[in-house]
Amino acid sequence: MMKECVENVRKNVPLVHNITNYVTVNDVANVLLACGGSPIMSDEPEDVEDITSICGGLNINIGTLNKRTIEGMFVAGRKANELNHVVLLDPVGAGASALRTDTAVKLMDEIRFDVIRGNVSEIKTLALGSGTTKGVDADAADAVTDENLDYMVSFAKSFSEKSGSIVAITGAIDLVADKEKCYVIRNGRPEMGRITGTGCQLSGLMTAFVVANPENKLEAAAASVCVMGLAGEIGFAAMKEGEGNSTYRNRIIDAIYNMDGETLEAGAKYEVR
Amino acid sequence: MMKECVENVRKNVPLVHNITNYVTVNDVANVLLACGGSPIMSDEPEDVEDITSICGGLNINIGTLNKRTIEGMFVAGRKANELNHVVLLDPVGAGASALRTDTAVKLMDEIRFDVIRGNVSEIKTLALGSGTTKGVDADAADAVTDENLDYMVSFAKSFSEKSGSIVAITGAIDLVADKEKCYVIRNGRPEMGRITGTGCQLSGLMTAFVVANPENKLEAAAASVCVMGLAGEIGFAAMKEGEGNSTYRNRIIDAIYNMDGETLEAGAKYEVR
Amino acid sequence: MMKECVENVRKNVPLVHNITNYVTVNDVANVLLACGGSPIMSDEPEDVEDITSICGGLNINIGTLNKRTIEGMFVAGRKANELNHVVLLDPVGAGASALRTDTAVKLMDEIRFDVIRGNVSEIKTLALGSGTTKGVDADAADAVTDENLDYMVSFAKSFSEKSGSIVAITGAIDLVADKEKCYVIRNGRPEMGRITGTGCQLSGLMTAFVVANPENKLEAAAASVCVMGLAGEIGFAAMKEGEGNSTYRNRIIDAIYNMDGETLEAGAKYEVR
Repeated sequence: MMKECVENVRKNVPLVHNITNYVTVNDVANVLLACGGSPIMSDEPEDVEDITSICGGLNINIGTLNKRTIEGMFVAGRKANELNHVVLLDPVGAGASALRTDTAVKLMDEIRFDVIRGNVSEIKTLALGSGTTKGVDADAADAVTDENLDYMVSFAKSFSEKSGSIVAITGAIDLVADKEKCYVIRNGRPEMGRITGTGCQLSGLMTAFVVANPENKLEAAAASVCVMGLAGEIGFAAMKEGEGNSTYRNRIIDAIYNMDGETLEAGAKYEVR
Repeated sequence: MMKECVENVRKNVPLVHNITNYVTVNDVANVLLACGGSPIMSDEPEDVEDITSICGGLNINIGTLNKRTIEGMFVAGRKANELNHVVLLDPVGAGASALRTDTAVKLMDEIRFDVIRGNVSEIKTLALGSGTTKGVDADAADAVTDENLDYMVSFAKSFSEKSGSIVAITGAIDLVADKEKCYVIRNGRPEMGRITGTGCQLSGLMTAFVVANPENKLEAAAASVCVMGLAGEIGFAAMKEGEGNSTYRNRIIDAIYNMDGETLEAGAKYEVR
Repeated sequence: MMKECVENVRKNVPLVHNITNYVTVNDVANVLLACGGSPIMSDEPEDVEDITSICGGLNINIGTLNKRTIEGMFVAGRKANELNHVVLLDPVGAGASALRTDTAVKLMDEIRFDVIRGNVSEIKTLALGSGTTKGVDADAADAVTDENLDYMVSFAKSFSEKSGSIVAITGAIDLVADKEKCYVIRNGRPEMGRITGTGCQLSGLMTAFVVANPENKLEAAAASVCVMGLAGEIGFAAMKEGEGNSTYRNRIIDAIYNMDGETLEAGAKYEVR
């Protein structure tokens, strides 16, 4: 039950090590605190082994990668693997530059990821070794739609099988799949795309959920997607005249802070395929 | 018409590459999304050519420069010039340190900027090769005032002629000039100076406006200044008792999110000299 | 009187140079502006001497340290010492990694700090050369409590004597001590721990307070702790249904923006031991 997933986060207070971009890092930290987890950030190669060792999970986001932090990602990832910690990859902008694509591909080669979460362009880049990305947003032509849903579900499952990771493809319709099972999730609001970093926030949240639910990783990952989307719906419903994306950002994080198991069970919109 | 400038941003969704400081980067991203643009951040020299190539404009802000990101600025700037993209320089703190002054001056030597935007101290530093800067705020003694307006308008025009860039000097009175024409703008609120990064936000916004209005760059730059100032007025009018600079920051971005051509035309306060 | 401490910040507008982590830097800047100070950020070794020279104080926070910024901390700290500027150390995560512990210890060896501010785990790490840190939060077993208050007050005084710095240990009960006198402060709300960076914000605030009250550094440091805690109480009292940690963050900064001497005198809860 998704209810238990959210409650386990509040009960276990998972400590998550984030190597993430400087654009949205503050929101990622506040989302982790909102859901009941605890964030720590460190990207210096000499620092990351110690830091990741005291955590339960590692969230690697390549949004503003540089050569030093790329090294930090590999060092931290290897250590986290050695300790059997949960490791998540958010391949921001894979497909948009050679460095981003190469870094994400190499990370997948060398690090065992429990979850890979991105938009459809980024995931396609990783899965197919090709693709185009317009900025950090999904290529509209390549969105998951009701028309291509069967195809995309089987794509997500097969990429999960190939990669050995849970695959989360987020957009208007979200897919969270392992090789056998795919959650198709329809929470969220299109206006969330007008806030920077809702994807990065979700990656932090998802790491905490998977860490706190070790027996139930796929459902926990799916639950975090429902939480984020439902928080977007709750936050949007509270919007007043004259408010825009900045206040909306706050309201979404606030809604995560107030999310409990009952609210999630009542509001989560998904089917399993 | 300024109305068209703001509408063209919403219509064209300009993708803006930002090499900007880590203090205000999240607000810059949210302002770009608020106005209808799309932000991407990248400062690693090996990454910036690919990233800037898929964008329409490049916003270079030296607020927390370091040797690696300085190299990224030059690499990105040269590529953007090669592709005839819009390039803007925000010389944060020029005059406050030798590294900042030298970097800004060298950038101007090697990169062709469509727009240079700063406070009066920073712009004077670049124009005169001297000047003083107190932190990142304009030196009060050197503000644009009604008393020195004629002088400052001609200073802005002549620096535009010398540099080949549109020159935007922002403060209590804002000037946006090319060599022949200067917009004198009186939107905004003094309380905006109590929020970090309203200048950085404006640089991002201005880049998006100029990218989306290629036939009308000067007016587009002036329109972005009016949008920012008017958003400051709208946000301030909505302030409630007990609120301060943090909520005000959100309200300003919200007001940009809700800004339309009619609101701008009705609220913009400027004359052309 | 604490009243004068807060008023002196508004009157003197202390310019504070921050070498701080990229997670909470925007909030640190807005808190400095809220209290009446002015922030500038710079961490590049070649830039920091010039920048710190034009400031009144330097706030060193090791929260996302890397080799380049560590060098910047030493260069800036030496220059600030040379100029007799106020220097504060926030040893974020000392005890959680060897790099953090070593950096903080070496900084204390080479730089003269007016104030060291951290949670009890971090301060114990520095004082005892040992200790454990769970993320950036105080080890619950090692909190300052009514039961161990006498011991902790004398610990703070003796670490102040040993280090030559004012020592601020913040948590549910806050201690601000020199070798002879200790402020025991009971402002604040436990919910502040659910917002990222309230400690970092306090370090920025404290630097501004000490800079603006050179004759009265200990009381100024204690006043900043009362201001932060009282702002947390005022912000919490204004919370509405459905709001959470993101809005709370804004309300706290807003409350600092509106804080005056009378409000502080009426709300500060402390005793001197």
